[in-house]
Amino acid sequence: MKSSTSLKMRLPALVLVLEIVMLALYAVFVTYDDDANAKLQNNQTNPMDNALYRDYPYFADVQVMIFIGFGCLLAFFRFYGFSGMVFNFLTATFAIQWAILIQGFFQFYYDGKIHLGVINLLNAEFACAVVLISFGAVLGKTSPVQLLIMALLEILVFAVTEWAVLKYIKINDAGGTILIHLFACYFGLGVSFVLYRPSLNNGHPKEITSYHSDILSVMGTLFLWIFWPSFNSALTFKGDDQHRAILHTFIGLSSSTITAFALSALFNKRGKLTMADIQNVTLAGGVTVGASVDMMISPVAAYALGVMGCTACFLGYKYMSPFLAQRMRIQDQCGIHNLHGLTGLISSIAGICAILLATEETYGPSMYQIFSHRAPPEGDPKLLELQKLIPGLKPGLGRTAQDQALYQLAAIVTTFAASAAGGVFTGLIMKLQFLASPSDEDCFDDQLFFDVPSDFSSIEGLQCAAISNEKENINKADSKV
Amino acid sequence: MKSSTSLKMRLPALVLVLEIVMLALYAVFVTYDDDANAKLQNNQTNPMDNALYRDYPYFADVQVMIFIGFGCLLAFFRFYGFSGMVFNFLTATFAIQWAILIQGFFQFYYDGKIHLGVINLLNAEFACAVVLISFGAVLGKTSPVQLLIMALLEILVFAVTEWAVLKYIKINDAGGTILIHLFACYFGLGVSFVLYRPSLNNGHPKEITSYHSDILSVMGTLFLWIFWPSFNSALTFKGDDQHRAILHTFIGLSSSTITAFALSALFNKRGKLTMADIQNVTLAGGVTVGASVDMMISPVAAYALGVMGCTACFLGYKYMSPFLAQRMRIQDQCGIHNLHGLTGLISSIAGICAILLATEETYGPSMYQIFSHRAPPEGDPKLLELQKLIPGLKPGLGRTAQDQALYQLAAIVTTFAASAAGGVFTGLIMKLQFLASPSDEDCFDDQLFFDVPSDFSSIEGLQCAAISNEKENINKADSKV
Amino acid sequence: MKSSTSLKMRLPALVLVLEIVMLALYAVFVTYDDDANAKLQNNQTNPMDNALYRDYPYFADVQVMIFIGFGCLLAFFRFYGFSGMVFNFLTATFAIQWAILIQGFFQFYYDGKIHLGVINLLNAEFACAVVLISFGAVLGKTSPVQLLIMALLEILVFAVTEWAVLKYIKINDAGGTILIHLFACYFGLGVSFVLYRPSLNNGHPKEITSYHSDILSVMGTLFLWIFWPSFNSALTFKGDDQHRAILHTFIGLSSSTITAFALSALFNKRGKLTMADIQNVTLAGGVTVGASVDMMISPVAAYALGVMGCTACFLGYKYMSPFLAQRMRIQDQCGIHNLHGLTGLISSIAGICAILLATEETYGPSMYQIFSHRAPPEGDPKLLELQKLIPGLKPGLGRTAQDQALYQLAAIVTTFAASAAGGVFTGLIMKLQFLASPSDEDCFDDQLFFDVPSDFSSIEGLQCAAISNEKENINKADSKV
Repeated sequence: MKSSTSLKMRLPALVLVLEIVMLALYAVFVTYDDDANAKLQNNQTNPMDNALYRDYPYFADVQVMIFIGFGCLLAFFRFYGFSGMVFNFLTATFAIQWAILIQGFFQFYYDGKIHLGVINLLNAEFACAVVLISFGAVLGKTSPVQLLIMALLEILVFAVTEWAVLKYIKINDAGGTILIHLFACYFGLGVSFVLYRPSLNNGHPKEITSYHSDILSVMGTLFLWIFWPSFNSALTFKGDDQHRAILHTFIGLSSSTITAFALSALFNKRGKLTMADIQNVTLAGGVTVGASVDMMISPVAAYALGVMGCTACFLGYKYMSPFLAQRMRIQDQCGIHNLHGLTGLISSIAGICAILLATEETYGPSMYQIFSHRAPPEGDPKLLELQKLIPGLKPGLGRTAQDQALYQLAAIVTTFAASAAGGVFTGLIMKLQFLASPSDEDCFDDQLFFDVPSDFSSIEGLQCAAISNEKENINKADSKV
Repeated sequence: MKSSTSLKMRLPALVLVLEIVMLALYAVFVTYDDDANAKLQNNQTNPMDNALYRDYPYFADVQVMIFIGFGCLLAFFRFYGFSGMVFNFLTATFAIQWAILIQGFFQFYYDGKIHLGVINLLNAEFACAVVLISFGAVLGKTSPVQLLIMALLEILVFAVTEWAVLKYIKINDAGGTILIHLFACYFGLGVSFVLYRPSLNNGHPKEITSYHSDILSVMGTLFLWIFWPSFNSALTFKGDDQHRAILHTFIGLSSSTITAFALSALFNKRGKLTMADIQNVTLAGGVTVGASVDMMISPVAAYALGVMGCTACFLGYKYMSPFLAQRMRIQDQCGIHNLHGLTGLISSIAGICAILLATEETYGPSMYQIFSHRAPPEGDPKLLELQKLIPGLKPGLGRTAQDQALYQLAAIVTTFAASAAGGVFTGLIMKLQFLASPSDEDCFDDQLFFDVPSDFSSIEGLQCAAISNEKENINKADSKV
Repeated sequence: MKSSTSLKMRLPALVLVLEIVMLALYAVFVTYDDDANAKLQNNQTNPMDNALYRDYPYFADVQVMIFIGFGCLLAFFRFYGFSGMVFNFLTATFAIQWAILIQGFFQFYYDGKIHLGVINLLNAEFACAVVLISFGAVLGKTSPVQLLIMALLEILVFAVTEWAVLKYIKINDAGGTILIHLFACYFGLGVSFVLYRPSLNNGHPKEITSYHSDILSVMGTLFLWIFWPSFNSALTFKGDDQHRAILHTFIGLSSSTITAFALSALFNKRGKLTMADIQNVTLAGGVTVGASVDMMISPVAAYALGVMGCTACFLGYKYMSPFLAQRMRIQDQCGIHNLHGLTGLISSIAGICAILLATEETYGPSMYQIFSHRAPPEGDPKLLELQKLIPGLKPGLGRTAQDQALYQLAAIVTTFAASAAGGVFTGLIMKLQFLASPSDEDCFDDQLFFDVPSDFSSIEGLQCAAISNEKENINKADSKV
C-alpha cells in the first residue's frame, strides 16, 4: 500500500513535464526588461538609477521571509520538520518560477514578450506567499506532488484574479490584504474542505511538537516579524508612502505581539504561555495594518489595529477553528483563517474607513497619488493643476471616496468568490489517486517521503519519553508531599 | 505556592494597562515626521531622497540582531530555551514601543508632537538593546512581568541619561560605548545586586546547556557578529565616517574572535575549546572599538583594540565574575560586566586617546564635523572659512581636545552613577511580591511559565543521560586499557 | 596519545604568532582608501556617493552566507556540529583578515600602502569562500590548527593566482566560477589527496547525521540559496550587468532546486527524498550560471544551465565521489567536486559559448564594457566613437571573441594547475606531526576539540536509539501483518 505514495516516478515525471513546459515558455516568451537589457544602456542611462537598486533590497528581505521564515515556521511538528521546511522550499521555488511566467503574461507582457526584471521576481514572491499561506491549511496531509499541483493551479487562479481586480476594479491595497491574505486564506480553506479527513478531527498521535521544533518555529516567526515591514511596503509608492508603510507595519506588529502574550496567559488554564500563540498570533498585526498601510491613518491607528487583529486572531484559534473543523468540514491545520482571514477582513474594513476619511487637508495634493483612482481624469483642468504640484501624477478615474469604498467591497467579494471556488476545484484535482496523497495514518510523518536519520524518534520513543516524563511528574509530586 | 508565579491575571493586567497608556499617549502625541508625512511632499521633494532609504537598511540589520541575535544567544540554557528566546521577544517589542514615546519626548518633540520616522525606530532599537543587555544579568531568574517592569523603568532612566549627556555634556560616542554598553551593564548589575539569590551561588542543577542549545546560541552570536558593523555605524555621519565605523568594527571583531579561540584553548585544563567563550568572548571586539569607531584611529588600532578587549573580557569571565558573585553579591548570569563593562571601559579610554590625538593634519577640515563640539562657535570667522570647505558644518562650542576628553570622562561618571542607581531602584521595584518572581528552585526552568511539549527533558532524563554518558566514558576508558 | 591533539599550546601559539605578524603588517601597510579617509572629504564630495553605499549591502549579504550559510551547512554531522559551525567561524574570520593583507598587496597597493575600504572586505570574503569550500573536502578530519595553516597558505596561492589571471590572462568571470569555484575545488582535492585516510573509505561510525543536524544544515543551504544572487553579482558592473546577474542566479538556482528533488526521488530505492541532496544539489545552479552570469544569455539559458548543473552534480555524488575515494585516493567529504568542480566546468564552457556568441547586435555598444578586453585599444578611432555612447569606457586590448575564448581556456588550465599543486603542497605541510591532526578513530567527533555538554550522545546512545528504532520498525511490520 505504501507504494502508492512512492515519489520514485511521480515526482520526477511531474518535474520533467513542468521543466519542459517552462523551458519552452521561457525560450519563446521571456526576455529582459529595459533595466536588465544591455542594449538599452547608453550615455543617457545612469547605472545607479537602475530599478535594481530600488527593488532588490525588498526582494532579498522577502526571500528571507519565504524560505527561512515560512520554512522554519512550518517545521513546528515534531515528526514533520523535514517535510515542513523542505516541501516549503520545493513549493516556493516552483511557485516563483511559474508565477514569473503567469503573472508575466498578465502584467509584464508587451511586444510579444514577458519582460523580466527584479520587479517581476518581487511580484512572483508575493504570488508564492499566497501559495505558502494556503499550504498552511493542509500541512501534514499532502504529498509534494500534490503541493506542486496546488502551486500550479493556485498561481493560475491568483494571477487571473489579481489581473482582473487591478485592471477592472482598481483598488488600494498596498499590503496585499485582499489579494494576498484573503485570497490565500479562502483558497486554502477551499482545498482543505475537499480534502477533508474526518478521522483526523480527533487528532493524530503525531500531531505534536517537540522542544526543538517549537524553538525552530519561533525562529521562523521572528524572521517573518523582522522583515514584514519590507513585505508590506515593497510595492507601495517610493518616498513617504513606503516610509509610512514601514512605520505602521512595525507598530502594528509590536502591539499585536504584546497582546498575544497577554491573551495566551489569560486563556491558559494554569496561566502559562503557549508556544503556538507566540508562533502565530504575534504576527496578526502585520496583516491587519495591510490594507491601509501606506495611508495617513496615524500611528495610533496602527497600534489599535494591531491589538484588534491580534485579539480576533487569538479568539479565532480558540473558538472558530474547532467550529470550522467539526461543523464545516474545514480542517485548517495552521489556522490560516485566523491569521489571514479574520485579520484580513478587519484590515479590509479599516482600509475602507481610511479611504472614506481621506481628505486633501490631511494628505495634501499627494492624496491623488496614493488614491490614484480618485485623481481627475485625463483632460480635467484640475489634473493639470495637480500635476504642477506632483510632477508625474497620472490621470485617474475621478472616483469619489464613496466610489472607491464600494470598489474595495467589490474586490473583496470577487476575491473571496474566485479563491474559494478555485480552492475547491484545486482540491478536487489534488484528490486524484496518483498524486500520492498520504493515508490518514501516515500524516504528519517525515518517514513517508524522506529517508530519515537513525535518531528519528517515533511513536514508541515518544511513549517512552512521555512515560518517563509522567513518572518524573509523579516523583516531583511525591517529593512535594 | 506555584500560583504565585501564574501569569494568568498578572501579565494580561499589566499589558492591558500598558496598552491603554500607550494608546492614549500615541493618540495625543505621536505624529509623522516630515519624511513620512504625505502633506509635505510636493514638486520639490524627491521620493528617493527620503530619509527612509538612508536609515531603513541599518534598522533592518539591527532588528535581526535584536530579535534573532539576542534571542538565540539567550537561549543557551538547556531547559530555558523557550524563555530565553521568547522573553527576549516580548521584552524587546515592548521596550521599542515604549522607547519611541520616551525618547520621542526627549529627542523628537516639537510643535507639541513626537515626530515619528524610521530614525526614531532606530534610536528606539538602541534603547531596546540596552534593556536586553541588562536582561542578560538576570536571565533565568525573572518572570516576564518583572522583565516588562524592568523595561519600563530602564527606558525611562536611559532616556533621561541619554538626553542629559547628549544635550549638556555633549560627547563623541558613535558606537554607543558609554550610553549603551556601560549604561546597560551597570544598570543590569544594579538590578542583579538587589535580586541577589545566595543559594544560587553554588550553581543550580538546571544551569546547564545542551548540545542543541549551544549550537542555537552560537547562531545568535554569529548574527550579532555579522550585523555589528551596522549597529556601530547606524548613527554616525554618512559618508567616510560610516565607512570607517564599518571597517573598524569588522576588524575589531575579527581580531577579537581569533583571540577568543586562543584563550579558550589556553585556559582549558585539557586544551579544548569551551562553547561559552565562542558564544560571548568573540564579540568583545565589537564593543571595544565603539567609542572611537568613526575616528581616524587607523586599521591597526582597531585590530589591537579587538585583541585587548577580548583578553579583558575573557579574564573577566575567568576571575572577575566569580569574585563579583561571591564577594559583591552581584550575580551576573551572562557575564555582561565582561562583555559590556570591561570592554566598555577600554573602549572609552581608547576614545579619549583618539580625541586627544586628533589633529587637522589627519582629519582635514572634516575634523570639526566628527568632533562637532570642537568646531568654532557661531560668529567665529574660522567657522565661515571651514563652512566653505565643509558645507553645512554646524557651529560648535570651540572646545579643545583636552576639554572634550574631560567631558567624555564626565559622561562616563554620570552614566555610571545614573545607571547603577537606576538599576538598584528598579531592582527594588522588581522585588515586589506580586511580580511573579520565580523561587530559587524554579529558576532556569521553562516549565514555570510555559506549557512545554512532552519531550521536555527534565532532571530525571538528564541524570539518565549523564549516567549513560559516564558509563560510556568508562567503557571507552576500559577499551583503551 | 590524546595529548597530541590538545590545543592547549598549539592553537594559542599559532594565533599569537599570526596576530603579531598581522599587527606589524597592518601597522606598516594598511591605511584607509579614499572613501574612508576623512582628510579627502571636502565640499566636492557628496557623502551619499561614498562607495560604502554601493558595496556594503552586498558585503552584508555575503557575510550571512559565509558565517551562517556555510556554518550551518557544515554542521550536518550528528557528532560534529560544534566543530562544523565553529571551525568555520574561526577559519573564515582568520581567512578574511589575512586576505585583506595578501589581496591588498596584489590589488590595492599604491603609494606604499594597502588602501582599505569595504570593497577590500568584499574581495576578502570571496577569498574566504575559497577556503571554506576547500574545507568541505576535509571536514571532520582536521584540527583547527591545520585549518588555520590551510587558510594561511591557500589565501597566498589564491591571491597570486587571482592576480596573475586578472592581470595577465584577463578573463570574464563575474560569478567567480574559475577563480573561486574551480580553484577552491582542486585545491581542496589536492589537500585531501595528501591527507588520504584509507581506513575511512569504509565509513566511520560517527559519519552520520541526526534529525536536528539535518534541519540545521538545510537552514544553511537556504541562507546560501537566498543570498547567492548577491554573491554572484557583487563584483559585476553596476546597472544592467548586476541586474542580469541577479536574475540569472535566481533562475538557475530555481531550476536546479526542482531538478534536485526530482533526481533525489528517482534514484532512491524506495522513492524517498534524501536530505543530503536537498542540502547540496539544490545549490548547483548557483555555480553553473557563474561564468556567464552578467552576459545576455537570455533567461531560458539560465534555466537550462541550472538543470544541467544540477544533473551533473547529482550524478557526481552518485558515481564520481565513490570512484575518486576508492580509485584516486581523493576523499571528498562534502562532495565539493560535484558542487563546485563539475558545475564549474559546465559553467566555464557556458561562459566560453556566451563569449563566442556575443555580438554588438545583442549587447549594443556596452558589449565593450562587459567584455572589456574586446574594447578597442588606446588610440583606435573606434574607441572614441564608443566612448561617446558609453562614457567612461576604458580602452581594451582589441581581442576578438575567439581570442577571449582561448584566454578563458588558458585561465582554466592555469587555475587548475596552480590550485592542485598548491593543494598538494599545503596538504604536505598540514601533515606535519605537531598540527594536532586527529586519529582516524577520533574523526567526526566534537569531543576531541570541545568540552561537550552532558547530553552529547555518543555511540552507545546511538546504538540504543538504533535498536529501539529497529524494534519499532519490526513492531510496525508486525502490526500490519
